[in-house]
Amino acid sequence: MPPLSVTAAALIIGNEILSGRTSDVNLAFLGRRLNELGIRLMEARVVPDVEAAIVAAVNETRARFDYVFTTGGIGPTHDDITAACVAKAFGVPLVQNPEARAILEAFYAPGELNAARLRMANTPQGATLIENPVSRAPGFQIGNVFVMAGVPSIMQAMFEGCAHRLSGGRPMRSRSLTVDLPEGGVAQGLAELQQRHDAVEIGSYPFKREGRLGVRLVLRSTEPERLDAAARELEALIDGLGGARSWDET
Amino acid sequence: MPPLSVTAAALIIGNEILSGRTSDVNLAFLGRRLNELGIRLMEARVVPDVEAAIVAAVNETRARFDYVFTTGGIGPTHDDITAACVAKAFGVPLVQNPEARAILEAFYAPGELNAARLRMANTPQGATLIENPVSRAPGFQIGNVFVMAGVPSIMQAMFEGCAHRLSGGRPMRSRSLTVDLPEGGVAQGLAELQQRHDAVEIGSYPFKREGRLGVRLVLRSTEPERLDAAARELEALIDGLGGARSWDET
Repeated sequence: MPPLSVTAAALIIGNEILSGRTSDVNLAFLGRRLNELGIRLMEARVVPDVEAAIVAAVNETRARFDYVFTTGGIGPTHDDITAACVAKAFGVPLVQNPEARAILEAFYAPGELNAARLRMANTPQGATLIENPVSRAPGFQIGNVFVMAGVPSIMQAMFEGCAHRLSGGRPMRSRSLTVDLPEGGVAQGLAELQQRHDAVEIGSYPFKREGRLGVRLVLRSTEPERLDAAARELEALIDGLGGARSWDET
Repeated sequence: MPPLSVTAAALIIGNEILSGRTSDVNLAFLGRRLNELGIRLMEARVVPDVEAAIVAAVNETRARFDYVFTTGGIGPTHDDITAACVAKAFGVPLVQNPEARAILEAFYAPGELNAARLRMANTPQGATLIENPVSRAPGFQIGNVFVMAGVPSIMQAMFEGCAHRLSGGRPMRSRSLTVDLPEGGVAQGLAELQQRHDAVEIGSYPFKREGRLGVRLVLRSTEPERLDAAARELEALIDGLGGARSWDET
């Protein structure tokens, strides 16, 4: 039987996300895909391209969660310091990985594999590569830490390539109900529903659409029958309040 | 003279961001606006609606950074636990704030201010309100922690309403050059440029557009003259490599 709960953290590495210059889209992808694999993303951190910050974040999260996924900072330039920081966090040397070097040598035309590009063959000692089908320079795994590129298309391809190495728990199932009542009108009944269903996590997300207040109510559980039971009671609650409701496609 | 460096952290609170169901847009807004005010966003954390996780994140970040901004979890429903968690982090009771109650009483029609909505008047003892011009229920500030809504339009209005309480350092200026060379071709010269200009932070962000590799090079500094000097050398570097280049509008 799979374990009840398998957890993960994401480390989004890069000044460009913190300065607001680039909007991160990797977090949403990771959250969704990990969920499907029965792994709960419990925390995400965005950290700058600063060695001490990255080393500390890697060590704090790898001790606390089953898996850690990093994105960003594995290219050829001086600000790409993730591999060196992960090596430091694990207390192992950063070494040239022969397999990674062979991949780069096969990819670049003669003379193009300069010293900067060759930095992309460096991994912490003992790391296993993660294939990059898009632009070849690989990511890597060491212990429970998976180091991936920041460019979303590359990150996603890397994740799919190493997903078979992950062991998930029971998959989290969810249902989402859109309701045309203001959040404050359903809050009391919702709190009571939550108290009766401790195996179901109930989230409430208000919105305003065409000038009218509404709320999206999300039920999540690893236990399908309990999820269904809570969903039926939620329907009754909304009907009792006279609200229109519809289950969202997921 | 303003201090050299004023720092901040953002705490994005909510299961819906970690599950990938909702994409966060508040981080990019905060990063950009804080930059303009001379405050550097040094870390962001996304934490679930779990008391222990929120309390720990508030206490770690408020000790480490000049300012902390939280988004999310201040509505009327059972999963809105941010105010209680911040009170716990500061070791003060959560109390009904008379000013906040008056705001809610003035807003809701008679009979509509139920117990759930009244929860939105609770703040940690000693907190100062942050006005909410959109849907009235206020945020609050306690110590160096600013607690705001998760809905982006409300969060942004709250931020603008309390921005005058923030004291920034020297504003960070930046210039961004788009270049039609692959990142690995400019990496060596860029590393040398970075070594000569320690007051300028040089970031390199590769992209692929219409099948061609390019790179966006970002220079950031609090010292305008050093920024300009680095920019001139960067132009010469790219010209020497035979690349086309253009400064982005910012």
